[in-house]
This record gives sequence, structure tokens and C-alpha cells, in this order.
Amino acid sequence: MNYTLTQIPERTDKPRQSGLTMVMDKGLSLREVEDFLSTSAQHADIIKLGWATSYVTPNLKAKIAIYQDAGIPVYFGGTLFEAFVVRNQFDDYRRLLDEFNLSYAEVSDGSIDMLQDDKCEYIRQLATQVTVLSEVGSKDESKIIPPYKWIQLMKSELEAGAWKVIGEAREGGTVGLFRASGEVRQGLVEEILTQIPSEKILWEAPQKEQQVWFVKLLGANVNVGNIAPSEVIPLETIRLGLRGDTFTHFLDK
Amino acid sequence: MNYTLTQIPERTDKPRQSGLTMVMDKGLSLREVEDFLSTSAQHADIIKLGWATSYVTPNLKAKIAIYQDAGIPVYFGGTLFEAFVVRNQFDDYRRLLDEFNLSYAEVSDGSIDMLQDDKCEYIRQLATQVTVLSEVGSKDESKIIPPYKWIQLMKSELEAGAWKVIGEAREGGTVGLFRASGEVRQGLVEEILTQIPSEKILWEAPQKEQQVWFVKLLGANVNVGNIAPSEVIPLETIRLGLRGDTFTHFLDK
Amino acid sequence: MNYTLTQIPERTDKPRQSGLTMVMDKGLSLREVEDFLSTSAQHADIIKLGWATSYVTPNLKAKIAIYQDAGIPVYFGGTLFEAFVVRNQFDDYRRLLDEFNLSYAEVSDGSIDMLQDDKCEYIRQLATQVTVLSEVGSKDESKIIPPYKWIQLMKSELEAGAWKVIGEAREGGTVGLFRASGEVRQGLVEEILTQIPSEKILWEAPQKEQQVWFVKLLGANVNVGNIAPSEVIPLETIRLGLRGDTFTHFLDK
Repeated sequence: MNYTLTQIPERTDKPRQSGLTMVMDKGLSLREVEDFLSTSAQHADIIKLGWATSYVTPNLKAKIAIYQDAGIPVYFGGTLFEAFVVRNQFDDYRRLLDEFNLSYAEVSDGSIDMLQDDKCEYIRQLATQVTVLSEVGSKDESKIIPPYKWIQLMKSELEAGAWKVIGEAREGGTVGLFRASGEVRQGLVEEILTQIPSEKILWEAPQKEQQVWFVKLLGANVNVGNIAPSEVIPLETIRLGLRGDTFTHFLDK
Repeated sequence: MNYTLTQIPERTDKPRQSGLTMVMDKGLSLREVEDFLSTSAQHADIIKLGWATSYVTPNLKAKIAIYQDAGIPVYFGGTLFEAFVVRNQFDDYRRLLDEFNLSYAEVSDGSIDMLQDDKCEYIRQLATQVTVLSEVGSKDESKIIPPYKWIQLMKSELEAGAWKVIGEAREGGTVGLFRASGEVRQGLVEEILTQIPSEKILWEAPQKEQQVWFVKLLGANVNVGNIAPSEVIPLETIRLGLRGDTFTHFLDK
Repeated sequence: MNYTLTQIPERTDKPRQSGLTMVMDKGLSLREVEDFLSTSAQHADIIKLGWATSYVTPNLKAKIAIYQDAGIPVYFGGTLFEAFVVRNQFDDYRRLLDEFNLSYAEVSDGSIDMLQDDKCEYIRQLATQVTVLSEVGSKDESKIIPPYKWIQLMKSELEAGAWKVIGEAREGGTVGLFRASGEVRQGLVEEILTQIPSEKILWEAPQKEQQVWFVKLLGANVNVGNIAPSEVIPLETIRLGLRGDTFTHFLDK
């Protein structure tokens, strides 16, 4: 840090198990990745190459190498996993992870219907190869999953071998954990937390108000994701009580 | 592409007559242009220097040259054409196109009142010098043009020599083809398409939901414009059925 | 300018006392700063390192030097001043300004309660060291300050030694001068202007519609702030009547 202030909450150190920031790259150039890392490498824990943007991104291997050389793992968005599965190309997907030297992968069913047993089987198989993040929640805003079901799904996916479970929000923050307006489904989050340890959940929270809400509920070291590269520094100030929204939250009363 | 997936719709090749992506540059630096081209040159067909941003953009000739050297034509936004016309400087405008080595130009009347005969005469004159895009629709959200009138205007402008007609939306996507909320004026679009061939129209569609709507209606190779540079890669995935929104659209049933 | 148009309003020259554009940097990399300056150095008058982003920004001294070498002063967002004050570290803050070679500072009370006499005393003390901008208005949207009170506060802060007073809006443009919808509190602005000279006020106006409103009310050379780096070129066109929104505003009738 550039100067000393009292009453700043303590942040976890890398490699973090809690306090993770997952960043969404939806098509940065190699130089933009370098720029991003020059400001935010310390605050970014894991990079998601959003949905299937990796299909059309030039210099993909070079990009992945830049992140990995900075000590930050990379994974393909869950929609790419689904694109392979729906085409009966799961074995191709497993080869792809090796070809691109990836040690993380996401299992999701946000865009397709999948039996929960099948999803857990994919998690089990991929967990023998990579670290698995599994995502719960639909990208379809008309599909409302009740809280008890979120809990069942999360439990079974963690038992199947997922490292963390992700609460779905999309790039915009308007489905899954959130209403179409972006407002948090507060009762849902609170009920999930009665059953699943907070550090096992990574909450997608692309909007500032969503990040503020989670930091106020769970502290500086909450796991959040789908953060735009340019919002990693602002998020870090929210975590530390150094933006208006959380300014008084960590101060001695 | 970085890997092989089945059931991906076929995209047209450059130079495209359909499936065009028109990108809006509203002030990128030279290095940002290079970054953009390193990821998106293959997917970007034509660059608009938004409205009259070219008036205050440094290194304008160098910027235009970078795009053109990548095989991507550049044109000044229609508002600049109107700024010259309203000041009785149309001859200056024609000289300007030559001075900046431009082979495309836009004719529009989004900010001023212009007789349709005069607009077509501008199109005819400019078409002897450059490839002309003409734009239909007002930037004033209180001016609602009925569908039959859109059709008349588009027909007469294509007959006057326009290569494509553009459906107005502004940078934000909230006028012309769209309601103030950004929602597509669906009946308007459908009625236009009964009379004007889809490949002759370039639909301004800056918002993701608008792009999704046009891809679902007209397929992977719809012409869309006013795309922000950072949204060209995401748009390409929408075209290919590789984002949640169009994920099942191109799959065999 | 790249070409000549008649009927363009005259802009003030640097160093400007009116017509100022204050830009918010919330975490740019050094190369992004260079990119920004290559397009916008001429149009940017002063840089705010947003709220306390400077706490977590790497290469902070190098960044400040790049801006200052381009002749553009830099200051820390008012929230950082408040973070030091609320921790009884005001003397540390004064040393910090010297350590980072800053000649501007902001005094604000957007996130904490502060007696107006105390705020003016901070202004007086800092004014012996640097040029002071003081900010009026709360970041809390539920705290509505009546117009006569805005005027009292602004007058007393200018008398205490503030160079300019800033009207609060946050990064988003949804508090202080604006309603939660972003709409200008028009009556408030007009009443303030009956008592405070326009050139002494810097209006935070991050949204395009807000910038348009102020340019229409106060002309090309209004002082506005919290402008995103990528919006400085677009703002300049709004000032000059070269974007649709102000297109006819400066034309001879």
C-alpha cells in the first residue's frame, strides 16, 4: 500500500482460499492484459475467459501464458463446457483443457437442461484432471430456483469434488442471485449461508451495489466474481472500507 | 478458430456484403486502435469515427491509416456531414473526404431537417466520389417515423446510390429503431423487411439485447452497427450461438 | 482542430479558469495514462484519482509524474481526505501531499459528518499548502440539502480559501446535484447560480445527459467533472455543438 491508514480490515494473502476476486476477460488484447496485470495482479486471483469468447480470441495460448506467468490461473467460462457437452464432445473438451495447459475448469448448466446426477458426474471426472468450479443458477431469468434447491445443488456439487460453487449472475448481474433489476435476492443468499460455508461460495457480483452488499454482509474477504478488469481496483477499495459505500463499515464505533 | 465445434453457423468472408459489423470509434488512441485490431480485425468490417469526434481527435490521419492498412475502411459519422451541410460547407466536406483519403461516407439527417429530395441529391453526388451509407431515423426521440415512411425513405436512398441504408439508434440504442427503453420496435423492423432486402440494411444495435434480437431474427450474418470496440468479440459469439442468449438457436433440434 | 467549421463556440485556453474538464482516474495503468494523454491532454485540465483508489494503485508516483509532465495537475479524491480525518490523521494527510508532490487537494464531507466550521478550518489550513477544491453535497442519497444551504456552504468555503467548489454527484451521477435517476435537480442549480459565480463552481456530471444539460445552460465553457477518460473527447464535441444533443445550440438562428 502507498501509505498507512489505521482501521483497515486485514486481507488474506495469495493464494487465497477466501477473499478471492474472479475477473472476467471477455476479449482483452495481450497488451491490455499486461496493462491490467500492472495495476491489479495482486488483487486478482483467477481469470475467467467469459463464456465461449475463447473460440474467437486470437493469440489465445499467449494470453493464457501471460496470466499464468503472473501466477494467476485461467479457466474457460461454463458456457463453453456446455457447448461441448450439448454436442456430445465432452472428450474433446477434456483434451482441450490439456492442450491449453489449463488447471481449472467450470461445470455449469446455465444454458442447457442437465440432470443433477450427470452434472455431478462431470464434476467428478473433471476433478481428476483439474480444479473444478461448479456453477448453480440459470441464465434464464424466468427459471427461479427456490432456496432449498440451491442448497441441495451446492452440497451435491461440493461433495462431487467442486473446489468452490459459483452463484450465477451473468456478465450483467441480472439473473440467478439477483432480480432483473440487479437487486440481490437477499433471503436466498441468507438461507444458503445457513447451510454452506461462505468460503466455499464464489458470488458473481458484477455491479458495484452488489459488491457492496456482499462486503457488508460477509466482510472484506468475501469471494466475488464476474468483476470487469477495470473494476478490480475499485472493488479492492470497497473491501477495505475506502469507498463511500463501505466507508464507515470497518471503523471502530 | 481455436478449436472445433460442430453445428456452428457459417459466417461470410471479408469483404462482406452481409454479416457486416460496423464499429464505432469515439476517440481511441493509436495504441488502442492497434490493441483493438489485434483481437478483432477479422470480425470488424467498417469503422465509424463517431459523429464529429474527428474534429477534436489528434493524429487523425495516422489513425485512419492504421485501420486502412488492416484492410478496414473508415468513415466519418453522419453528424459531421450534417455539420458541414447546415453551414453551407458541403463542398468543403467533399474536399475533406479526399484530404483524409476516405472512400466511404455517411449521409444522414438525424439532427437537422432536410428535404428528402435534397438528401438523395447529396447521396447521388457523394456516390460519384465514395461508397455511401445513408441513415434513416431521427436522433430526436419525440420524432416517430411510421413504418411506411421508413420504407419510402430507404427505397429512395438506395435508388439514389446508397450502398447500404443504416437504421438509426445513436450510441446508446434508444431512438429510431428502438424505444427510449432500448426495446426494439419489432413491428417496424418486420414491416421494413417485407420491402427492403435484409442485406441492404445495417441495423445500429449497440446494446447486447438488440444484437441478440437481430441475430435471432436474421441469423448469424445480419449487418449490425454502432458496436463498441470491446463488444466485437462478444458480438461474434452471439452470431455463432456461443453465448447464453443464442446458445440453442443454431443447434439441431 | 483537424478542419475548419464556422459557428463553433470559442473555448478558453489552458490554464483554464472556466471551461475546465476534471477527469476521474479510478485505476488506469501507466500505459493507459499515456494513451489517454495522447488523445485528450489538450482537453483535460485536472485529474482526480478517484476516492481512495490511490491506496491500492501500484506505481503511484510514476503515474502522478506522467500527468504532471503533461502539464495536468493531479489530486486525491475527497474520500481519501475524509479517511485520514476520521482517523485523526490529518497531519499525515498534509505530509502525504508533499510526499507525492501534489499541489492540489480536495476537502469534502460526503461520507462523514463534519461541522461546517471545522471543514472551513481544514480548507484554510490546506490552502496555505496547496490549491484547494472543496466539495458540497452528500454521497448519501437520503440526505437532501436545501438550495439556500448549498449556497451558504459554497460561500463559506470559497471565503475560507477554496479555489473552486465542487457540486457532488459521485462516479455514477446519482446523488447531490442529481436525483437517483440521474436527472438534474434543475431548481437547485438555478438557485445556486443566483448567488455563486458560475466559474467558481465545478459541476460533477458523469452522465452524457448531465453534461448536455450544463452546456445548454452555461455554454461551452462550463466547468464539469467526474468525466471518465474515454468520455473526454465526446464531452469536447458536446461543448462545441458537434454532437446531436447540442447540434443546433450554437448555430445562428
